Parts: sequence; structure tokens; C-alpha cells
Amino acid sequence: MEFPRFEPRDEGYAARVQGSFARQGVMATIGASLAGIEPGRVVIELAWAAGLSQQHGFLHAGMVATALDSACGYAGFTLMPADAGVLTIEYKINLLAPAKGQRFRMVGQVVKPGRTVTVTEGRAYAIDEGREKLIATMSATLMTVLGREDVKN
Amino acid sequence: MEFPRFEPRDEGYAARVQGSFARQGVMATIGASLAGIEPGRVVIELAWAAGLSQQHGFLHAGMVATALDSACGYAGFTLMPADAGVLTIEYKINLLAPAKGQRFRMVGQVVKPGRTVTVTEGRAYAIDEGREKLIATMSATLMTVLGREDVKN
Amino acid sequence: MEFPRFEPRDEGYAARVQGSFARQGVMATIGASLAGIEPGRVVIELAWAAGLSQQHGFLHAGMVATALDSACGYAGFTLMPADAGVLTIEYKINLLAPAKGQRFRMVGQVVKPGRTVTVTEGRAYAIDEGREKLIATMSATLMTVLGREDVKN
Amino acid sequence: MEFPRFEPRDEGYAARVQGSFARQGVMATIGASLAGIEPGRVVIELAWAAGLSQQHGFLHAGMVATALDSACGYAGFTLMPADAGVLTIEYKINLLAPAKGQRFRMVGQVVKPGRTVTVTEGRAYAIDEGREKLIATMSATLMTVLGREDVKN
Repeated sequence: MEFPRFEPRDEGYAARVQGSFARQGVMATIGASLAGIEPGRVVIELAWAAGLSQQHGFLHAGMVATALDSACGYAGFTLMPADAGVLTIEYKINLLAPAKGQRFRMVGQVVKPGRTVTVTEGRAYAIDEGREKLIATMSATLMTVLGREDVKN
Repeated sequence: MEFPRFEPRDEGYAARVQGSFARQGVMATIGASLAGIEPGRVVIELAWAAGLSQQHGFLHAGMVATALDSACGYAGFTLMPADAGVLTIEYKINLLAPAKGQRFRMVGQVVKPGRTVTVTEGRAYAIDEGREKLIATMSATLMTVLGREDVKN
Repeated sequence: MEFPRFEPRDEGYAARVQGSFARQGVMATIGASLAGIEPGRVVIELAWAAGLSQQHGFLHAGMVATALDSACGYAGFTLMPADAGVLTIEYKINLLAPAKGQRFRMVGQVVKPGRTVTVTEGRAYAIDEGREKLIATMSATLMTVLGREDVKN
Repeated sequence: MEFPRFEPRDEGYAARVQGSFARQGVMATIGASLAGIEPGRVVIELAWAAGLSQQHGFLHAGMVATALDSACGYAGFTLMPADAGVLTIEYKINLLAPAKGQRFRMVGQVVKPGRTVTVTEGRAYAIDEGREKLIATMSATLMTVLGREDVKN
């Protein structure tokens, strides 16, 4: 599917994403980093680590979901007003293949932005000895939150 | 909803769950522990930690999902044959409230066991100053895998 | 899971549900009827019909989903203000068994009501020669809509 | 996202889809027709009808879901062996906009085919006075069933 070019309502969208990302303790814990920020699209990267693995040594699905959910959330956040916070209402993830690889790339993409509700999609790729493979797909629903200190980003 | 008593096909189900859980590096990383194992039902507990937080200091939704997905997966695993592995096909999580608390309890429950496909549900609770609150619900679909070394538990 | 007693904000909740249900052409087309309306809980019933079947003669999953989604939507609607409309943001359905039976009962239940977003769960049962069997589970997210003529119920 | 060209395992895939579609009573009831069959991709079309409407006169979300789920199921079915049946394990639908239009086009696409489990995605479009608009997205998980008379297509 082709996605339209989205217009951000706040020019400072990239700085907002970077600032919020930096305040998430868990992103440092799992070694995730921002690899791309465009209006309606965010890429997060992650390296394999023993402390993030499941029982067969692959990256744990929970870590795939954590990074992919963040990519989707920040993709939506790029299109929100400067003073908005973002909440994930729900997401669904399909795990297509074991997360076998040395590096992982998570792409979050806005499908439909809205004043209150924004719908996004995510794709997770494993990079295993130079080859990239689709390992998970996500659909996530976000809420724009205004005027609440506890969810300000 | 009431759930029926399920009969395990393998008497050693609890030991199998404990063994598999111990081999998951990520469970140690996030400080999760097994708090209950019955046929068709598994409870996982988790404590808040700065390194597991999101930008407002609450437990990151990804950590809630990681522990809850594990509870659902192991709930299904209790009813599988001794030589089976378990894969999560997909899950959906609804985040009902911020994960604000000192401790967290994740309950995974089998709704319908199957030869190939098992459907489970999960509930995540935050314990905040002694009060327990429902913060997330999950529905997860599992696959029983036989005869594959790479997904043996 | 136990559900709390919810307090409706509008005493006329049952009449609102009945009125909205009656305006849905599709409910007459598929022969669905309201079988129970309580605060936070709605039951819809449906009979098997050849014109609602899939290729093996069972009730089509789409009809199960249509009636179950309505039960969930109206369950949420019982707790909304008198002038609100309800929109389904998304739902997920797990099909546990073929919809084999003469009658079907769909139960929608609010898990967490909210000012803007309400989360519900649904259960679909087939009644086959007097025995009731769980055939599908749903989780559905609703939005309360105020001040929009096109989604007023 | 780009999708690869998938190779069908059975040359007669289009006839199989047409035959199964014709045996579904509900497809005639809702006036759905097959508008495209390729390996891994199926298009279903539908016209608005008063008997398929919700309370505001738009096409009922359940009809959107029914036709979109069928498009996804048949997309997966094109890649299955000649003697296989297909079951929908689960699907999730995000409703992006009211189904306002005279005609509707549902596109089902395989994301990852598998021996047992196939993952698909769907897009529903409303055609309203000549303009096409994305109104819903779906992710659906299918199971290939072999050797069961009751789910043979």
C-alpha cells in the first residue's frame, strides 16, 4: 500500500520524538535507538543481546513488540500538536518468523491520523548475516491526549 | 466468564514451564518471576524498575505486554504434550490504564486448547500502595509445535 | 473474570439501545434480536438461516462477528450519556469452533468504560440441539462521540 | 509495503476460489461478487443496500468485515494445496471512517504464507461519487486444513 505524505502540525516534531524517546528508561535498557523520523513514519533499531533473548536464543517477541510499538507510537506522535501526549490504546502483533538475527529494524507508519484517534501499522525486520527478513507486523491504535500533565511527552 | 478445569496431558507440566522460563534471558533482565502454575493458567509477577519505565516513569507498556504474553504462552504450554514447543502466532493487547504501581501481576488463562491452535486470554494488574487495578487485557493465539528442534522448549 | 456493577449515566439506556437497534437495517436482514440489556452488558440472539451460511452450511463467521460486534457496541452504549453516539474503533475476533447450531447467543460486556474510549469483550455461543458451546471471543474498542449529527444514535 | 509474487501450488486456484465463493449463501445475501483473483490476492466488491445498513444509513461495519474477511481468506486459499480447506483463526479490523458510498472494494493480500498458518492483510475502500477512500484495515490469520471433510472447500 502507498502512504500519502502527511503534513506535520508542529515543525518541531523530530525534536519532540527525540526528547520523549530519551526519557524512556526501557529504550536504553534494551539498547534501542532512533534511526529515522519523518512525518508519519519512525524507524527504531535494536541489536541482539543475550539479556533480551527467549529460550532458543532468538530476540524475545516481547522486545520485538516493545520496539515496534514505540515505532508506531512515535510515528503517530510526529503528526500531533506540540503540546499533545500520546497513549497506545491497543495493538495487535502477528509474529511471522523467529527473531533470528544480529540487528533488527522496526518501522512504524501512520495509516490514518485523526484528531483523537490515530491508526498506525508496523513492520519488524531481522537482519541476519546481511539479509533482511520480515518477522512481525503490527496494527496499533493511538490516542492524542491534550491537557493532561501525566501523559505529556 | 467461568473457565473449565483443564486436564494436562503431561504430569510434568509445571517443571516444563519452570525450565523454559529459566532459559529466557529476558525474564531475568526484567526481573519477572513465576508466581503460579496450574493446568491452563499461569501467573507471572514483576516489580517496577527505573530501567523498565516509559517517559512518565510508569512501567513501559512493552514490559507489561512481554510479561503478559509470557503468562499466556505458558498457560497454553501447561496443556501441551511433553515434547511440544510453543509459538505465539499473534496477540492483541488493550492498555486500559497507565502501569502505575510498585508490583505487577500478569495472569494467563487458556480459553480453548487445541491440537494445533490454542487460544488464551490475559489480564495484567498493577498493585499500587496495596490496591490492585486491572491495567491491560490480552488475547493471544498459540501454536503447538512438534518435531522441530529450534522451537523445542 | 468478575465484572463490577456499572452505573448508567442515563436512566433511559435500554430505550436508547432499542431505538438504535431498530434503525439498523442489517439487524432485520440477519434476523437478530435483543435478548438482554443491562448497564454494561447486552445480549443479542440470532437463528441459523441458509442465507447466512458459509460453504459448509454453518453460520458464516461474518454474521457471528456482526452480531457480536453489535452486542459489544451496545454494551458500551448503555453507559454513555443520553446524547452520545458510539463508534467502533476496532475489534478482534478469535473463532474457536465452527458456528454449528440452530440458535446463537452473543454477549457483549464492558471491561472498562471511559469518557472517550471504552473497552469491551464479547462471547459468542452456538446452541446445537440444546447444548451451548463457546464459538468465538471478541475484544472491541469503542469511542463515545458527542456533538456529531452523523453519529448520533 | 511491497509484496512478493507468490507461486500457487495448485494451478486451479481461481476455480477453487470461485467454487467455494458460490457455495456461501451469505455472499449472495449481501450481494458480494469476486472482482479479482491472483496468487495471494483476492478482490471482492459489494454495493450499498438498505438492508445492509447501520443506524445512520451507511454500510454496516459487520458487512465491511464480512466481505473483507472473505477477501483475506480467499487470498490465502489461492496459495493452498488443491485438497485443502481454509479456516480463519482470528482477525482484527480497524474501522477508519464510516462506510459511506455506493460501492465498496475489499482487497485481501497474503503477507506470509505458511504450511499451517498464513497471515494476510486487508484493505476496504468506499467509492463515494467516484472517489475512493480507505475505510478499514484488517489483519487475519488463517489455518490450512487437510483431511477434514467438514472444512473441505
